[in-house]
Amino acid sequence: MPTVRLKPKAEARAIRHGFPWVYADELVTDRRTQSLAPGALAVLEDGERRPLGLVTVNTKSKIIARMLDRDPDAVVDQAWFEGRLARALAHRSRLYPQPFYRLVHAESDGLPGVVIDRFGDVAVVQPNAAWAEAHLDALVAALVAVTGVTTVIKNGQGRVRGLEGLAEEMAVVHGAAPAGPVQVPMNGAVYMADLMGGQKTGLFFDQRENHAFAACLAKGAAVLDLFAHVGGFGLAALAGGAARALAVDASAPALALAEAGAGASGFGDRFSTRQGDAFDVLESLGTEGARFDVVICDPPAFAPAKPALEAGLRAYERIARLAAPLVAPGGYLVLCSCSHAADLQAFRNACARGIGRGGRRSQLIYTGFAGPDHPVLPQLAESSYLKALAFRLDG
Amino acid sequence: MPTVRLKPKAEARAIRHGFPWVYADELVTDRRTQSLAPGALAVLEDGERRPLGLVTVNTKSKIIARMLDRDPDAVVDQAWFEGRLARALAHRSRLYPQPFYRLVHAESDGLPGVVIDRFGDVAVVQPNAAWAEAHLDALVAALVAVTGVTTVIKNGQGRVRGLEGLAEEMAVVHGAAPAGPVQVPMNGAVYMADLMGGQKTGLFFDQRENHAFAACLAKGAAVLDLFAHVGGFGLAALAGGAARALAVDASAPALALAEAGAGASGFGDRFSTRQGDAFDVLESLGTEGARFDVVICDPPAFAPAKPALEAGLRAYERIARLAAPLVAPGGYLVLCSCSHAADLQAFRNACARGIGRGGRRSQLIYTGFAGPDHPVLPQLAESSYLKALAFRLDG
Repeated sequence: MPTVRLKPKAEARAIRHGFPWVYADELVTDRRTQSLAPGALAVLEDGERRPLGLVTVNTKSKIIARMLDRDPDAVVDQAWFEGRLARALAHRSRLYPQPFYRLVHAESDGLPGVVIDRFGDVAVVQPNAAWAEAHLDALVAALVAVTGVTTVIKNGQGRVRGLEGLAEEMAVVHGAAPAGPVQVPMNGAVYMADLMGGQKTGLFFDQRENHAFAACLAKGAAVLDLFAHVGGFGLAALAGGAARALAVDASAPALALAEAGAGASGFGDRFSTRQGDAFDVLESLGTEGARFDVVICDPPAFAPAKPALEAGLRAYERIARLAAPLVAPGGYLVLCSCSHAADLQAFRNACARGIGRGGRRSQLIYTGFAGPDHPVLPQLAESSYLKALAFRLDG
Repeated sequence: MPTVRLKPKAEARAIRHGFPWVYADELVTDRRTQSLAPGALAVLEDGERRPLGLVTVNTKSKIIARMLDRDPDAVVDQAWFEGRLARALAHRSRLYPQPFYRLVHAESDGLPGVVIDRFGDVAVVQPNAAWAEAHLDALVAALVAVTGVTTVIKNGQGRVRGLEGLAEEMAVVHGAAPAGPVQVPMNGAVYMADLMGGQKTGLFFDQRENHAFAACLAKGAAVLDLFAHVGGFGLAALAGGAARALAVDASAPALALAEAGAGASGFGDRFSTRQGDAFDVLESLGTEGARFDVVICDPPAFAPAKPALEAGLRAYERIARLAAPLVAPGGYLVLCSCSHAADLQAFRNACARGIGRGGRRSQLIYTGFAGPDHPVLPQLAESSYLKALAFRLDG
């Protein structure tokens, strides 16, 4: 096993206390280290050559090494993956009565760069790191052994794969591909997830608890679900007793899945869709004088990284400004961000400014994050991406 | 109606955008203003004598004026209170199927300094501001008219009353005092609230949603509830299927109410208590080698204000350090803070540090705040006091 070493002055304390990453400027990058293939495993040593653990190295990344195991003698094989997966599964089984959840959330579950979502008997693996791609067979065998899933799909469409030098790829790596969209029960509704279609029409579990909260507000309500995707908030609201829900999305395939979900849930008659750009639809609904008791906006990341922060916050503010006038007196506006770069305070301020410029006063009644099947390391908690805010607007 | 005026250079924009307070250094404090009795009503004007709204003035407070109504001509009478209360009630009725909630959360519900908790037919009013004390009759009459409660208790024991020049007092101001502790159904358990006993043995609604989350983790679990008060987390955990719960508190009356609640909930046989200082009990449980699947610490505010921040954070860290070793492998540690001065990041860091010093690694799986019956103004959201963090500890 090759070794890599922290620079003499680099601080090993954070790593000893659980920080999972080594930045490029902290590591001695001699020729031997430079020659390591992306995703190679190595023993990390501190400046005094004391081993800190087993890491995976990518000399092309700003995060040059990621901790795999505090035990420098660990062997990354099927049994090792089984240990990681069993620990992850125990947590999710406790949380959710049915096997539909994010099973592995990368670093936080001890598998850097690896995301696994479970949809009953089907698991979708995103091996968004070179080390995971290299050990995919052992990972998949462990996944089947620990969970009993009959199908494993490899979703290699993540943005980050390019940075790791990995190709885009979508493949069934175990069992047979599902015949069509998979039914996913959540919050009393049934969602349809097209698992072979990639992220555009898949399904995200991270908003489940925020869907549930919005559903609490929706009894008897007229609901507008913007950036609805496959109907996340809208179908949960209908399950919570909403009188009707209108889902808006730019993607026709996503809306078709939302409609199929509404049908499978038994609320097809209370559900309608409008295809189009959400900003355009917001403006035309404003012109029409439409009013909803609950308006929800769950847009894509407007500020995925720092350079996009200012423009992103302006976009969040604009959404809030356009959406606020559509909320009936005493109604609710739920605004979400999945932008890493926009922290809670910046996002909340953008929302509050937008609501004010939309001519409304508000109370903030709820702040939610990604659900508990999306754990974060405390050391990385500042960067947790998902925020959902619920405001009550004036009467 | 007297008028008070912002200094020429004071910025009226924040107030126009919904900020509810004027600080002492922003207001012209001439002799006429100085002569206003604490809690007097006045029309607030900007530097150019344009009216901004109706405020209540307290020249002895750093927050010298608080906005009551954006309409400078508003008349604070029973009808005015009824409007405020009806709006607050509509929100809570939507959220909660049974009438047990915080009905009014001060500024955010348009009634600065006024807190009203509802326990079925009984309401407890905390008029923690001089203006509210002066208008208490109209407030109580409105409360009875809007909600139909048959008993109204005035709880005048809040710390802040001294700052407002108000006396401590506990009184029944409408109807008859409840014969004994009141049963409060929440999260599938029944809690006992001694409403005449003041805050020491009353009941707080703000943790309801965090209780519910902890209960999700507790199926089949052995639960330790530290600073248990009347059993908030412990009884919810038992309702969620915990095998047993041990509640620790320094207050014998609080634990007696917790035991009565466990009995009324039908889980008396799974519930036990230990009276004592939580730090002492933590240390002796550590010595005994006790282990629990879920450990919850919901202490009083260790850092209520800035001067106490450092010592408070050390106390939170100490709690985490002592509690972490008591958590079984793969178990959960829920840590709460109701300290205004400790923001989310500072509190989270203190917890993570303590867990690390307690010899454990962790994932953060949940961040919760006060429930939606405790709304905040977006402009004051930074200062929201309650945080609940759930960590999963290593196996």
